[in-house]
Amino acid sequence: MSASTAKVVFSPSGRRGEFALGTPVLQAARELGVDIDSVCGGRGLCGRCQILCCEGNFTKHGIVSRAANLSPPGAAEGQYGVRNGPLQAGRRLSCQAAVQGDLLIDVPAESQVHRQVVRKDPGQREIRLDPDIHLYFVEVREAELDHAGSDLSHLLEALAEQWDLQGLSWRSAVLKRLQAILREGQWSVTVALYQQREILALWPGFKDGVYGVAVDVGSTTIAAHLTDLSSGEVLASSGMMNPQIRFGEDLMSRVSYVMMHPEGSAEMTRVVREAINSLLAEICATAQVATADILSAVLVGNPVMHHLLLGISPQELGGAPFALAVDSALYLGAPELELDINPGAVIYLPPCIAGHVGADATAMILSEQPHAYEDISLLIDIGTNAEIVLGNRHRLLACSSPTGPAFEGAQIRCGQRAAPGAIERVRIDADTLQARVKVIGSELWSDHPDFSAEVAGTGVTGICGSGIIEALAEMYLAGIISGDGVIDGSLADGSQLVVADGRTFSYILYANAGSTITISQTDVRQIQLAKAALYAGVKLLQDRLGSGSVDRIRLAGAFGNHIDPRFAMVLGMLPDCPLQQVESAGNAAGTGARIALLNRESRSEIEAVVQRIEKIETAVEAKFQEYFVDAMAIPHRTDAFPNLFAEVAPPRRIRPERGQMTDSPGKRPRRKRSR
Amino acid sequence: MSASTAKVVFSPSGRRGEFALGTPVLQAARELGVDIDSVCGGRGLCGRCQILCCEGNFTKHGIVSRAANLSPPGAAEGQYGVRNGPLQAGRRLSCQAAVQGDLLIDVPAESQVHRQVVRKDPGQREIRLDPDIHLYFVEVREAELDHAGSDLSHLLEALAEQWDLQGLSWRSAVLKRLQAILREGQWSVTVALYQQREILALWPGFKDGVYGVAVDVGSTTIAAHLTDLSSGEVLASSGMMNPQIRFGEDLMSRVSYVMMHPEGSAEMTRVVREAINSLLAEICATAQVATADILSAVLVGNPVMHHLLLGISPQELGGAPFALAVDSALYLGAPELELDINPGAVIYLPPCIAGHVGADATAMILSEQPHAYEDISLLIDIGTNAEIVLGNRHRLLACSSPTGPAFEGAQIRCGQRAAPGAIERVRIDADTLQARVKVIGSELWSDHPDFSAEVAGTGVTGICGSGIIEALAEMYLAGIISGDGVIDGSLADGSQLVVADGRTFSYILYANAGSTITISQTDVRQIQLAKAALYAGVKLLQDRLGSGSVDRIRLAGAFGNHIDPRFAMVLGMLPDCPLQQVESAGNAAGTGARIALLNRESRSEIEAVVQRIEKIETAVEAKFQEYFVDAMAIPHRTDAFPNLFAEVAPPRRIRPERGQMTDSPGKRPRRKRSR
Repeated sequence: MSASTAKVVFSPSGRRGEFALGTPVLQAARELGVDIDSVCGGRGLCGRCQILCCEGNFTKHGIVSRAANLSPPGAAEGQYGVRNGPLQAGRRLSCQAAVQGDLLIDVPAESQVHRQVVRKDPGQREIRLDPDIHLYFVEVREAELDHAGSDLSHLLEALAEQWDLQGLSWRSAVLKRLQAILREGQWSVTVALYQQREILALWPGFKDGVYGVAVDVGSTTIAAHLTDLSSGEVLASSGMMNPQIRFGEDLMSRVSYVMMHPEGSAEMTRVVREAINSLLAEICATAQVATADILSAVLVGNPVMHHLLLGISPQELGGAPFALAVDSALYLGAPELELDINPGAVIYLPPCIAGHVGADATAMILSEQPHAYEDISLLIDIGTNAEIVLGNRHRLLACSSPTGPAFEGAQIRCGQRAAPGAIERVRIDADTLQARVKVIGSELWSDHPDFSAEVAGTGVTGICGSGIIEALAEMYLAGIISGDGVIDGSLADGSQLVVADGRTFSYILYANAGSTITISQTDVRQIQLAKAALYAGVKLLQDRLGSGSVDRIRLAGAFGNHIDPRFAMVLGMLPDCPLQQVESAGNAAGTGARIALLNRESRSEIEAVVQRIEKIETAVEAKFQEYFVDAMAIPHRTDAFPNLFAEVAPPRRIRPERGQMTDSPGKRPRRKRSR
Repeated sequence: MSASTAKVVFSPSGRRGEFALGTPVLQAARELGVDIDSVCGGRGLCGRCQILCCEGNFTKHGIVSRAANLSPPGAAEGQYGVRNGPLQAGRRLSCQAAVQGDLLIDVPAESQVHRQVVRKDPGQREIRLDPDIHLYFVEVREAELDHAGSDLSHLLEALAEQWDLQGLSWRSAVLKRLQAILREGQWSVTVALYQQREILALWPGFKDGVYGVAVDVGSTTIAAHLTDLSSGEVLASSGMMNPQIRFGEDLMSRVSYVMMHPEGSAEMTRVVREAINSLLAEICATAQVATADILSAVLVGNPVMHHLLLGISPQELGGAPFALAVDSALYLGAPELELDINPGAVIYLPPCIAGHVGADATAMILSEQPHAYEDISLLIDIGTNAEIVLGNRHRLLACSSPTGPAFEGAQIRCGQRAAPGAIERVRIDADTLQARVKVIGSELWSDHPDFSAEVAGTGVTGICGSGIIEALAEMYLAGIISGDGVIDGSLADGSQLVVADGRTFSYILYANAGSTITISQTDVRQIQLAKAALYAGVKLLQDRLGSGSVDRIRLAGAFGNHIDPRFAMVLGMLPDCPLQQVESAGNAAGTGARIALLNRESRSEIEAVVQRIEKIETAVEAKFQEYFVDAMAIPHRTDAFPNLFAEVAPPRRIRPERGQMTDSPGKRPRRKRSR
């Protein structure tokens, strides 16, 4: 080794090289292709390039610790400390620290450009941070009389010289304030670039912090997550009601509204865009981030939400053949969607899959990765339609099934949206037929002495989708309804909780001074129809896949989040699967949107996956009707899950005598329950 | 030759080949690469593919005329005739007519895609028609339940299958009405494509006719030309005042307004965009064309107009170093400029050259083509600043010179914009010193008995820029002003037309009951300053070019259109050049914009030329001041042009005794005129 050079080894990459004494560590790292972040381009401003210095010299026998192999901290690091607080012990700015002798340099995770972000969601899959927006600080040549060229051309020159970024294009929005920003920053600016090739935005002087937002536009709720694009951290999340609800509670009633009032489409586009803007303003205020610093957005939604967001009438989605206007992924500018974020922001809409399988399902797939496993996954997002995805790394199939809005509490006599006051949990004593319930907003069961006081604010207002699933399953387990779904009128003789209701009977789930919540025979039928549609859709996909076995089931969406899978199993909504493999997918669509926001490769990944998905149209499949009719009844399947209800108190009667469990929910013997 | 094939020769290309009997002539032409237009893709709808059939068979000795070598007209041609009137004699639709024997086919000019368009403007240079927008008619697969894919994907498939157009992108605006248009056209649509790669717009069914607009945004006047992109024909032209005038008559006063009122920039952007929109609505109404059928626009203007149009504050253009925000060519969408044309339209703004040499000068270069000749051209566009371009195929130089607004009639006591009532022509009798004038809006000289009656409507309201040039030249020739530009006060003794006016004298150009138009000493000084600036700018470019000779001079803009070059020569505004080589360039900027609209290659041509132009900043050139001072006086140059005023009646005294003509306007002996 020459006396004028030294060896430098970087950890964790293990890359090593020999450098002239005096070489800045950042430069050495760059020459070796070691991944160290920097926004300011080595000016000691951004602090992104921090390294941990394990000084030493290298001998045949390893590393011997020795001091002073790195140049001492200089003025720039001092000033950085004054502005941002002192660096952690042992940390240095690699752009300022120069090689003085052999070195072992540790690059901490947060100094790496492509670091992993741990998901807080179930499954804990990590996201590899690789957004398509990066910041670059540059010093631009000042405009002078005797030098030709525009301010823009000088900016492009600076990016080429200082960052080796050639042939850049730019959003025209950038031009409007370019001159004022260059002068305000005294010819220093920070530039946001899209994929190292297009200028999206500028700020005067040095700027750190650029943000993205993942938005899940649901029919009922819009949720948004503000994310730091340089750390991957979620800074604020919030949700709000979709104001389109005033045009129709569920999707199909909104589409019907458009069919009756064609001008309603533009109006729904307007209100949903306004709602997103107010939600973004809210989360930005929470995180103290300017909306103009949002440079990237990913929006997902079902096909109707997707089309309305784009200003496309959803009319064609209201009837066969349910034609999408567009199913490819879309890149748009913020002005095209009238979003009040940086006008240069890049908006990504993942592809829709089919007429009723939207970009929300695409995001769910990105989050749950069924295409990554040998195991067969079943993903279900239940809304007005159930979006169903089945398959593994070899094949993936998708369909939507017309479950109707019953699972959302609509078309149910006492049904309502999941909101405070709605019954969401139900337990029925099989002897007394008396139900205990829990409502959203309270942790107490209704037989707790403090229950009435606790729910005094909201009252008990109705029953939501997950509540009605439990109610029906419990009614079945308590013998109130038969396998065919008929409320047993003979019970009316011995119990005041089963009452005549026209030609059929109703069950009184909850009664109090203020409110009586009943389940009618029609309610039971509605849920039977919905769950039969869901099951038939799954069965159709299983047929096509040629395999009836499912290794894991993930339930997405608000309903999927709240439902207790055990009761769904009892009702025969889901195919057989080990119970511990049935889970809520959490907010899978929102998580998928966040992955697409933070990792650019995930976009091409999911676009390729969606291309490969086999789309099954349930409406033209003859077998669908057959499966649907077969799946109407409640299967005698509880004995297949001996421990299913073990932990539920009070213990209840399981009725093994009801008949053997059958594979297909429709093929079991129907017999009258003996009592 | 096989009995089942025949020889086909196309004229004028001379391409030939052998084809199976029954081959449609259009297909034969395509296979040979013969340039025949078609929008409908061979369905007999568009009539673009007409050919003239010179039937015959080929022998060694040439062509012998023979009938029936082309299939007889069928149903499609019959229907075309019913819809559009019968075809001209001998004409056939080449998509319908099939080869039945040897043929000589003539492709008329209007059936060729790349035909020449004759310019009506001076110079008669032809434009090769090659716009970047073309129409394609397609039949799209209908959406069906059992076929996956969106309406967009079906449209893309149809374009790939029927026109071999692969990998197309699309404007997001296209998506909004895609579904409705497909259904309205019963799955037949006409698609407008940009450069065979991006879908800009759609119409239901078959559609012919797509339009472009060339707009010259002047400080005073906005002019627009509506052009048929498939024929190159100008369908309607119109102009209107630039409403920004209320913020300041000339450019610099508008920039000053923005400096005082920063919010004024957005306001000026708004009013100029509104004005363009109302102008486009007007010319579309005249031509009975829908504004939504405008798919292409080219806009040119000086840098201040250019920046305001883009929504960029022109503040930096108001002072040194006169920095442009952007000088490259720009492609924009119609919504970005808020233009009420098709939202998918492509807008092109040619590059600006320098801080005061704008896209209008670029368009002037495109129209006048100085870079195409060995001869040295001098192009001048006179506004508040004179934009000056000098050079030839080897080198091209440009500068702007601060002539101020005097040439536009501003800062002149009786000056006004060129408008009805303004004096534009002046002749002075050297003996009586009495002037005859002509005003805009009348063909009569003021000494005609009917003059007063004819101008009664407007009156004689002032003098415009071209009028003041003639007035000064005539005053000089009549001995009223000296070579130094001093009004000869001694004349006041013998003439009532020269009158004392404070410490100096004025000349009464026109006096009548209603109005008196005088030329003051200050007016003379203003014009001297302006013409000296212009001359000095030209001289500086000549210095740099290393050549004092000029082979042709073209004067552009409104002022350049109206000025009589002889008088400009007398005043010493222009360098020496054979008088017959000095011409108005007409509306060179508008013509250049129209060339860029109709010929896509002209855009890259002019962008490359602008890159090469050497930009001279007069403000930092020490010699500019020197030339400027030297050019203040009026050169004794009339004797160099013996026939200059021969045809002007009445004959006037030419004063050869004044001294020999000098090359530099400032270096002549100054002597008192003897009288």
